[in-house]
Amino acid sequence: MRAVRGAATKTSRQSGQRLDHETRTGQIYEAAARVFCERGFGQSSMADVAAAMDMTKAGIYHHISSKDELLFGIMSYGMDLFEERVLDRVEHIRDPLERLRTAIRAHVLLVTRDRSKEVTVILNEPVSLRGDYRAKIDRRKRRYVRFLNQIFRELKKEGITRDIDPRIATFALLGMINWIYQWFGPDGRLRDTEIAEAYIDLFLGGLLRSDTAGRESAP
Amino acid sequence: MRAVRGAATKTSRQSGQRLDHETRTGQIYEAAARVFCERGFGQSSMADVAAAMDMTKAGIYHHISSKDELLFGIMSYGMDLFEERVLDRVEHIRDPLERLRTAIRAHVLLVTRDRSKEVTVILNEPVSLRGDYRAKIDRRKRRYVRFLNQIFRELKKEGITRDIDPRIATFALLGMINWIYQWFGPDGRLRDTEIAEAYIDLFLGGLLRSDTAGRESAP
Repeated sequence: MRAVRGAATKTSRQSGQRLDHETRTGQIYEAAARVFCERGFGQSSMADVAAAMDMTKAGIYHHISSKDELLFGIMSYGMDLFEERVLDRVEHIRDPLERLRTAIRAHVLLVTRDRSKEVTVILNEPVSLRGDYRAKIDRRKRRYVRFLNQIFRELKKEGITRDIDPRIATFALLGMINWIYQWFGPDGRLRDTEIAEAYIDLFLGGLLRSDTAGRESAP
Repeated sequence: MRAVRGAATKTSRQSGQRLDHETRTGQIYEAAARVFCERGFGQSSMADVAAAMDMTKAGIYHHISSKDELLFGIMSYGMDLFEERVLDRVEHIRDPLERLRTAIRAHVLLVTRDRSKEVTVILNEPVSLRGDYRAKIDRRKRRYVRFLNQIFRELKKEGITRDIDPRIATFALLGMINWIYQWFGPDGRLRDTEIAEAYIDLFLGGLLRSDTAGRESAP
């Protein structure tokens, strides 16, 4: 599941372009995510996934043993992408406000850009991922929830936020960003960078006390 | 589809309780929405829906002719509930800020409360509603998008909002609210009324210029 992580991605990340794909399995995950987004998980078969990859069913089964494992694979891959492009890149930022701004920007661009899009959508669909698989993905998702909660607690401690429950702030932000796929199209009038900056303004404006809303990053 | 609208609902609305159900079809929609939420649309059969209703399959087919029609029925019923509990109750409010506050409050409570919950979730799932059915639901959804856009344009005209694209504000708000089902549980530590008021503070704080954020309703 971690196969996509590697040195090869550095350049593509910097240019905001696609991750470099080192594995056939990663490509299958992306194709399968597109198929599931179009038809729904339950209405899609391994044969549909094979057709989308221009492979035989036997070829697909060489990489992945069942539809359930495929779904778990897509979600794990989605979490890899998310951690690589968002969480791992911002966690070290010391100033909580700057950490938050950078996370919002990176997360918005993850859900609007290129082929990671469908993978991210599947990640947030309440489709049938069960038992142990479900628990593993949920555990990884909670890392981001804790990360955001922590920022809101730090900002509260600094005394610069309105009196808003950190958990509510966390889920409001996740909703704003994760919902983007419902309405955003790359050919529409809004650019993704514009959405990212507007989201930062809107959310930080709501979060911070009005006398601190314009505050720049701490040194 | 309009069968749930009627005089009988007034008392239950006022007490924040359930809509009164006048039709068997409405009950089937709610049960089917629960089944689809649990198992996914593609993995559910009409037999599952019949079992959830303690009916025979023939009994279900007496009311609904196909799974596609059932999905369209649930979504139409979800739009009925939404219009009845949110849109129709706030559209007449003259002051745009008060109209917005009231809409946020009513919408949050719709997605957190009682049996309408799963119906609302299904309404926003990108499951396989196609062609004419899809167009009809999308048309009804656009009415709410226009309603919100209109509020943001009015507030902009009054000169009290930050410079945020009304479309971005609209979809950010829809995301915040529609995402609630992903994390909210009625047995959790947060009350739904608390979420509604926090959302109003957070969103209006972000939307309005800081010198007007505390503004009360216009006369």
